[in-house]
Amino acid sequence: MKIVIVGGVAGGMSAATRLRRLDETAQIVVFERGPYVSYANCGLPYHVGGVIPDRSSLLLQTPQSLAARFRLDVRTGHDVLSIDAARRTVTVLHPASGDTFVEGYDELILAVGASARAAVGHSSIPTHTLRTVEDVDAIGALVDAAADHPSALVVGGGFIGLEAVENLVRRGIHVTIAQRGPHLLSPLDPEMVAPVEAQLRGHGVDVRTSVTVDTVADGAVLLSDGGVLRPDFIVDASGVVPSVDLACSAGLRLGPTGGIAVDERNRTSDGHIFAVGDGVEKVDALSGEAALVTMAGLANRHGRSVADVIAGREERNAPALGTAIVKVFDVVAAKVGWSERQLVAAGRDHRVIHTHPASHATYYPGAQTMSMKLLVEPATDAILGAQIVGGEGVDKRIDVIAVAMAGGITASALARLELAYAPQFGSAKDPVNQLGYVADNLRTGAARTVQWHELATAQEAGATVVDVRTAAEHAAGAIPGAVNLPVDELRDRLGELPAGPIVVHCQVGQRGHTAARILAQRGYDVVNLDGGYRTWAAGVASTARELAAA
Amino acid sequence: MKIVIVGGVAGGMSAATRLRRLDETAQIVVFERGPYVSYANCGLPYHVGGVIPDRSSLLLQTPQSLAARFRLDVRTGHDVLSIDAARRTVTVLHPASGDTFVEGYDELILAVGASARAAVGHSSIPTHTLRTVEDVDAIGALVDAAADHPSALVVGGGFIGLEAVENLVRRGIHVTIAQRGPHLLSPLDPEMVAPVEAQLRGHGVDVRTSVTVDTVADGAVLLSDGGVLRPDFIVDASGVVPSVDLACSAGLRLGPTGGIAVDERNRTSDGHIFAVGDGVEKVDALSGEAALVTMAGLANRHGRSVADVIAGREERNAPALGTAIVKVFDVVAAKVGWSERQLVAAGRDHRVIHTHPASHATYYPGAQTMSMKLLVEPATDAILGAQIVGGEGVDKRIDVIAVAMAGGITASALARLELAYAPQFGSAKDPVNQLGYVADNLRTGAARTVQWHELATAQEAGATVVDVRTAAEHAAGAIPGAVNLPVDELRDRLGELPAGPIVVHCQVGQRGHTAARILAQRGYDVVNLDGGYRTWAAGVASTARELAAA
Repeated sequence: MKIVIVGGVAGGMSAATRLRRLDETAQIVVFERGPYVSYANCGLPYHVGGVIPDRSSLLLQTPQSLAARFRLDVRTGHDVLSIDAARRTVTVLHPASGDTFVEGYDELILAVGASARAAVGHSSIPTHTLRTVEDVDAIGALVDAAADHPSALVVGGGFIGLEAVENLVRRGIHVTIAQRGPHLLSPLDPEMVAPVEAQLRGHGVDVRTSVTVDTVADGAVLLSDGGVLRPDFIVDASGVVPSVDLACSAGLRLGPTGGIAVDERNRTSDGHIFAVGDGVEKVDALSGEAALVTMAGLANRHGRSVADVIAGREERNAPALGTAIVKVFDVVAAKVGWSERQLVAAGRDHRVIHTHPASHATYYPGAQTMSMKLLVEPATDAILGAQIVGGEGVDKRIDVIAVAMAGGITASALARLELAYAPQFGSAKDPVNQLGYVADNLRTGAARTVQWHELATAQEAGATVVDVRTAAEHAAGAIPGAVNLPVDELRDRLGELPAGPIVVHCQVGQRGHTAARILAQRGYDVVNLDGGYRTWAAGVASTARELAAA
Repeated sequence: MKIVIVGGVAGGMSAATRLRRLDETAQIVVFERGPYVSYANCGLPYHVGGVIPDRSSLLLQTPQSLAARFRLDVRTGHDVLSIDAARRTVTVLHPASGDTFVEGYDELILAVGASARAAVGHSSIPTHTLRTVEDVDAIGALVDAAADHPSALVVGGGFIGLEAVENLVRRGIHVTIAQRGPHLLSPLDPEMVAPVEAQLRGHGVDVRTSVTVDTVADGAVLLSDGGVLRPDFIVDASGVVPSVDLACSAGLRLGPTGGIAVDERNRTSDGHIFAVGDGVEKVDALSGEAALVTMAGLANRHGRSVADVIAGREERNAPALGTAIVKVFDVVAAKVGWSERQLVAAGRDHRVIHTHPASHATYYPGAQTMSMKLLVEPATDAILGAQIVGGEGVDKRIDVIAVAMAGGITASALARLELAYAPQFGSAKDPVNQLGYVADNLRTGAARTVQWHELATAQEAGATVVDVRTAAEHAAGAIPGAVNLPVDELRDRLGELPAGPIVVHCQVGQRGHTAARILAQRGYDVVNLDGGYRTWAAGVASTARELAAA
C-alpha cells in the first residue's frame, strides 16, 4: 500500500508516524512545500521575542531523522500542484530543480492547513504573516534592522496577534494592535477581555479596537477611524482561511464554512482522499454543525486517527469543543465551547454565571484573583461554554470544565467534582466547585441574578440598586444610583429599603447572594447582580469603548 | 426549627452558613470545643514554617463575624459531652466556667472530625500532633526554644507528615522522618514515590522507612530497626481515627471502618442526627463500599449538602474518589482512585501504564518531566486510578483525570480530550492525551507491555532485554543483561536478535513502543517495558530498600 501525505507539519506528520507504527510495509511519502517538517508552529512567536532563543529547538524532526526512525520518504521543497482523483495521482513541482512529476497513491492524506488571510495587501511597509519558520526569520530580520525607536503594527487581536504583540514588546518595539472587532480576543465576551487589554496597555501597547486598515501608502497606514500610523513593519495576524486549492483541483466537496468537508473518519467526498487539520471542517460539539476550529491539538489527533482508519481500525472523531488558551505577559485567557455572544446570535437559551475566585487558598501566599464565566443551558443544566481570565490556575480550570463537558457533567454537578486540594493549588471548595454551587442555586431557584448589561434596564424599570459592601468599598467606586447598606447590617435596617424591586450587589457576587437570600425570604422582589461590581465595571467599560468607537 | 451543630470548622461551618442562607428563621447553634472556628486546618503546617507568617490569616471567621453575617450562635470553648437521641438533647460542658447544661435540638449535625492517632504515647520528649491551631502554637514554641543544632522526629510519612517535615526544615531544624510502611506516601505505589524521597534527602532529611517507634525514654527514641534518636521534639503525624465518642453516646451505628455510618444524605442511624467530615464513612467510588476518606473538600461539600437535606432539598452525595495532592519542596505528588497495591490486594484485574512526559512543550523554556501512572480495568477500559509526581502541571493533570473518572470517560478516550494548549501550558498532545493513546494501544493489542516488577521473571523465563536507546544512554546506566540495539538501527540489524521472546525498552517507553511495533509486525514475540528504564530504575531501587529493611 502506498500512502501519499501532502503537508509535513502537525496533522500530516502525526498521520505518517502512526501509519508506520501500524504498518511496517506501507510506502509512505510526505510532500512538504516548505523547507522544514514537523516544526513547532505554536512556538514561532516566542522565537521572535527571544523566549526560545535557539531556532533549532523549533525544528523537531528532519527528513533524515524521520527516515531513520520511521522509514518515511519525506520530501521538503516539494509543491503538490494538483490531484487527479480518478487516476489516484498527484502532480508535484520541485521548484529548486524545476522538475514536475506525477506520483501515484492508494490513499491520499491532505494536511495542508490554512493560509493567513491578508488584511493588508501589497504594501509599501514590510508586511509579514506569522505562520511559518520563514515568516519568523523575516520578522526577526526586520526587528534586527529596525531604527532607533522601532515601531510595529500588529493587525488582528486574536491568539496569534496577542502572542506577536508580547514578543515584539519584548524586543523593545513600540507596538500598536488594530482589531476589527470591538475588543481583543473575539472568542471571549467583552467583559472578560478587559484585563487582557489593560495588561497590554500597561506594557505600553497602543490598543485600537473597532478599526481596520484602510490603505497603506507612502510608508503610512491609514486606519478606518482616521488614525495614521508609520510603523517600521506590519505583522498581519488577521486570521486564517482553509487552504482548499488542492482539494478543489480534485473536485472534493467543500463545506458551508469553506473548509474541506470530511466525515467523522476524516474521509473527504473521495473515498481514497482523507483530510485533516486547519483546512478541514470539524463538527461543533454544541450545534452538531460544521465549524472551523483551527487548533494544533485537533490537527495532531485527527492525523493520528486517520492513520488508524487507513490501517483498518474503527476510529471516529469526537465533535470539537474548541478549547483554547493564550498567555499575554502576566495574564492568561482561556475558553471552551460557546461564548455568550455566539449563544445570543444563535438564539440559544442560556444562563450566565460570573465569579472572581482566588486561584488557591487565600491564606497561602501568592493567590491570584481570576475571573470565570460559565454558560449553562437552563432546560438541561448542560455546560455550553466557559471563559477564564487570570494568572495561575486558569489553564487547570478551563481543562477541568472542558473534560466535564466531554463527560456530560452538568453545571450543577461541578460542585461535586473531587479536585485535588492543598493550599498551593486550590481551595477546599475549588473555583470550579463554586461555579457548580452557583449553577445549582440558579437551577433550583435559590438564587436569581441579573447580568451587568441588564442592570440599566432594571433601574429604568424602577429597581433600586443596593450595594451591600462596606462603606469604604462603596466610596472607592459605586454603581450610579446605588444605595449602600452593608450585608451585615441588612437585617436591622430593612426599614430603609423601598417596597419595589431590588437589585443587590457586592464586589464579586458572594455577599450579594447572602443579602438576596435574606431579603427573598422576607418577601422582597430581589435579584443579585451576577459577578458583582467587578463584572459590572468591566462590562460597562467595554461597552463605553464600543459605543465611543461606533 | 432549631439545629445544633457540634464542631465549628470545615463541615460544621459549611452546614451552618448554608442553612442560614436557606432558612432565615431557623435557630442555629454551633458548639466548638476549641477556641477557634472556621480556621484553615490545611494551612497549619505552613504557619510552623513561616510560609504563612501571619497567624491571624489562618483564622477565617470569628463567632462575632458569623453572628453578624449569618445570625449564627457560635459558642467556642464548649464541649458537647453526650447526646440523648430519644429526648433530642445534648449535654454541654463549658470548662472555663465549669457549667454543664442541656440543649435541645430538632436536628443535630455532628462535625467533630477525626482525632490524631498517637503512635507515640506519653513521652519524655515533647510530642505534638498537627491538627489544631493550639498544636501549631505549641510546635512553634518548641522550634523557637530549640537548641543550637535543633532536631525533630516526624512520625508518619503521609501528606501531613511531609508538610510538617518541609516546614521544620524551613526553620533550620534537622528532621528525621519515620514511616511504618516501606515507602513514604502509602496512597501511592513505591516506584512513584522515589522522587519525593530523593527530594527530602536532598534537603538533608533523614528518611527512615519500615520502622516504628518502639519506646521513648530518657530523652531517646528507640526505633524498631534498632536506631536511636535524640530529637528536641516529636511531631506525631501517624494518621487519624474518626472521633466517635459522641456518636457512641447516642447509640449511633458505626460502620465497618470504625467511622460513623451515614446514608447518602449524611443521615446517621438516628433520623434526626446527621454527621459529616472526617469522622464519617464515605462510599468508595470504585468498590461501592464504606471507606474513610479524610479530605477537606468532602467535609465542606457534605456540610453544605446536609444543610440542603435539612432544608428539605433533594441532595445526595457522590461516591468518593479520594483525589489528593501534596507539595514537598519542589516536588508535587498527587493521586486519585486506587493504587496498584490496593487493586492487587482486592484481586481486581487491572492494567498499568507509566509515562514520563514533559509538563509543557519541550521547545518552550521551563518544561519539567513528570511521572504518570494510570490504572485501567481491562474489561471495561474504565480508569481505576492515577498517580502523578513531578513539578509544574501535576495538579492540573490529576484534576483532569479525576473529572474524567467522574464523567465515566474511559482510559482510551483520554486521547480525545480537548485540553487547552499553548506552549506554556501543555503540548498539542497533552500528557493526559498520551496516556489515552497508550491505553488505546493496550486495549486494541497494538501494544503489549511488561511491568518493571515482572522483568526479572521474564528474563528468568528466557526473554532477552533489548535496550533500544542510544549507545551513550545505555552506557550511562543499563538493565543487567540488556543488549543495546538503537531503535533507528533495528530494522537493519534484525539478524542480531535471538529467536526467543524479547523485551524492548528505552528511557521512558516511547521509542520502545516504536521498536516493539517494528518487531511485532515481523513476527517476533516482543513486549515493551512499560515506563522504560526510568520506571524500572525507580521500582528496583524501592524494592531494594524494602528488601534491605525486611
